[in-house]
Amino acid sequence: MTDKPKQTSPSRRQFLTGAAAVGAGAVTGRSAKAATPDPLITEVQDWASGLGDGVDATPYGLPIEYEADVVRRNVEWLTADTISSINFTPIHALDGTITPQGCAFERHHSGAIELRKEGYRLMINGLVDTPLVFTYADLERFPRENRVYFCECAANSGMEWAGAQLNGAQFTHGMIHNMEYSGVSLRTLLEEAGVNPAGKWVYVEGADASSNGRSIPLEKAMDDVLVAFKANGEALRKEHGYPVRLVVPGWEGNMWIKWLRRIEVTEGPIESREETSKYTDTLADGTSRKWTWEMDAKSVVTSPSPQSPIKHGVGPLVISGLAWSGRGAITGVDVSVDGGKSWTEARLAAPGTDKALTRFYLDINWDGSEMLLQSRARDASGYVQPTKAQLREVRGLNSIYHNNAIQTWWVKTDGEAENVEVS
Amino acid sequence: MTDKPKQTSPSRRQFLTGAAAVGAGAVTGRSAKAATPDPLITEVQDWASGLGDGVDATPYGLPIEYEADVVRRNVEWLTADTISSINFTPIHALDGTITPQGCAFERHHSGAIELRKEGYRLMINGLVDTPLVFTYADLERFPRENRVYFCECAANSGMEWAGAQLNGAQFTHGMIHNMEYSGVSLRTLLEEAGVNPAGKWVYVEGADASSNGRSIPLEKAMDDVLVAFKANGEALRKEHGYPVRLVVPGWEGNMWIKWLRRIEVTEGPIESREETSKYTDTLADGTSRKWTWEMDAKSVVTSPSPQSPIKHGVGPLVISGLAWSGRGAITGVDVSVDGGKSWTEARLAAPGTDKALTRFYLDINWDGSEMLLQSRARDASGYVQPTKAQLREVRGLNSIYHNNAIQTWWVKTDGEAENVEVS
Repeated sequence: MTDKPKQTSPSRRQFLTGAAAVGAGAVTGRSAKAATPDPLITEVQDWASGLGDGVDATPYGLPIEYEADVVRRNVEWLTADTISSINFTPIHALDGTITPQGCAFERHHSGAIELRKEGYRLMINGLVDTPLVFTYADLERFPRENRVYFCECAANSGMEWAGAQLNGAQFTHGMIHNMEYSGVSLRTLLEEAGVNPAGKWVYVEGADASSNGRSIPLEKAMDDVLVAFKANGEALRKEHGYPVRLVVPGWEGNMWIKWLRRIEVTEGPIESREETSKYTDTLADGTSRKWTWEMDAKSVVTSPSPQSPIKHGVGPLVISGLAWSGRGAITGVDVSVDGGKSWTEARLAAPGTDKALTRFYLDINWDGSEMLLQSRARDASGYVQPTKAQLREVRGLNSIYHNNAIQTWWVKTDGEAENVEVS
Repeated sequence: MTDKPKQTSPSRRQFLTGAAAVGAGAVTGRSAKAATPDPLITEVQDWASGLGDGVDATPYGLPIEYEADVVRRNVEWLTADTISSINFTPIHALDGTITPQGCAFERHHSGAIELRKEGYRLMINGLVDTPLVFTYADLERFPRENRVYFCECAANSGMEWAGAQLNGAQFTHGMIHNMEYSGVSLRTLLEEAGVNPAGKWVYVEGADASSNGRSIPLEKAMDDVLVAFKANGEALRKEHGYPVRLVVPGWEGNMWIKWLRRIEVTEGPIESREETSKYTDTLADGTSRKWTWEMDAKSVVTSPSPQSPIKHGVGPLVISGLAWSGRGAITGVDVSVDGGKSWTEARLAAPGTDKALTRFYLDINWDGSEMLLQSRARDASGYVQPTKAQLREVRGLNSIYHNNAIQTWWVKTDGEAENVEVS
């Protein structure tokens, strides 16, 4: 943290040359300060040449047409079919921490199904005093909570186990989103049914054809899990589990059951297909890590990155990215421009909060030379994000899930960036 | 705060009768606990009968069709034309604190105009060392901040000065939204240009035909004002000022200039049309309050409310609403069910933050009798939201703007609610 970065911090003078002094001619971003400011204002944004749209034009607004590139994207060759597949949040183009629902990644096992609130039922059964069925209206009568949490697919960055492949933060790290959820604590509903002393786990399943059933230890189920019906203030989108999904803070996304149908209190784990054939991590010796629920601390530079190159040449540059941890709040992020030889502490846009995305910034003065750009997250448990080499040493190369290694972007002299590995 | 509410807090037993015990027959929300739980699961949410949509179905997702009512609405008779008009956030149907851009209220003076990032220019001129023009790319090179702030139109609840009129929280209090903004501190840009000692104000204007020019004291401009380009992580929507708007935390929404075009440092205020003929408050004696920028502490119960009636009959009821203050964080909210005779402290979903919406809840056991439902906000400055009578005593009845009085919903025995006044 005390190492000096290769790139220096920008001074006020350097910023000044980044904008055009009035009267200095074309705004190129490179023009020098005018010796005598010209009082003629010629470069200011034009006035509108007419009236705009009225307030009845868009009852529900959409992004402007010029932002049509900022969308979820899937990778055709990654899966056999789009029904059981993934797409990626355009994190390279976003800022802040909240992910709008419309561009928050999707992962379906049998496609996004369409339910109605009217017919919706949630059952709690198994080892309980009183098995219960809730309507949507029933759920709205229990005390509610609001919390911002990240949701990350266990397979996020999974392609990176085999080396740098997909060229863009959207594809390497875009199976993540961060929303403000409103709903009822699962604990409240379980207490309503009355959990028997023999009940030690819950088995949760969705109403989609895959069911995507997963086992969760009772301790977690009684801790911070939410039965959520709203995200970022409004109803869950169809693809995010309308009308009700499970929110399992800090744990892998596949446990955040969408179109939530049933919660069974059980003595032990069910060991369903989704937690045996999938979502275990094969180690070098062929054995598997199991119950790898918690998402380890992780971070990525979202800009500059392959889909968000530097277009403005040398001088002041905002390096920005996201950090998160399933074990608590992010306490710090370090950034390296030399492939991990030296590190500088980044500025967190706000203090880290529990199991939610944190935005970080590092303002440098880019001298135009190549950079091997990395970020390294630290969390409240004291954990530090590992390098790829460190992670592979422990986990081998057979894993698909839980790759939280440090990512490297090779930023070239022309500002273009590429996904690379550093030894 | 120590008064006992008329309605009691719900006990566990009362919740239990809110959900159907399995085997108890139809889920009516009123069925009693089954004496012997039936092991046959008949009421659980049906499985999907087929596959759902693939991940390529919606690159940018929209609300599900069943939520088509949760949209911005304008009131036709309120203004002569929709070009210079307002619409309202559907706050009666939202939860949490974040407002999605798509349903965040609009107020235009000459319609929502369409700009491109490529041609965008922002000028800083007037009493500065070096007048500057920034491109959009220039702005992206300055150190960035992220903050969540509410934006409220000064005319929000304006119709209430004359008594209870529009029947719904969306219409009485819906000229408010709350988003996470990313942008550059205005202070940073002003320091870049260098403010002369004679400069005491800034005049800010948009590129729309109205320009909507407003004067802001330099002290505020150098404090927490942002030149923002993103809201809730993504680009500003066209109707919210794409590509750049001003964010003036805690101050009336008309100063949050959209399609920001120019910032002129001046010796005194400009006293433009928008701050003389509009946005002053006419008092009982015909004189006007001027420079009433700060939004006073305010709150409203969003549910139950006229557009969000109680449909489930007696028993557990979640009373929920929003509170905010332009003077800092909300420190507490009290709720009354008897028109202000007695008050109970509501639960804040999260500690209040500076100049942002706070969600509050009060869980009661509704006995089915009429309620005169009110909420009362308190902020970090010690200010307590006034009654309509208290506010009218000071301001008279001629005002349009800055009505932050306590709102009353008359909830009837059938659960329907109506906008009323209490003496």
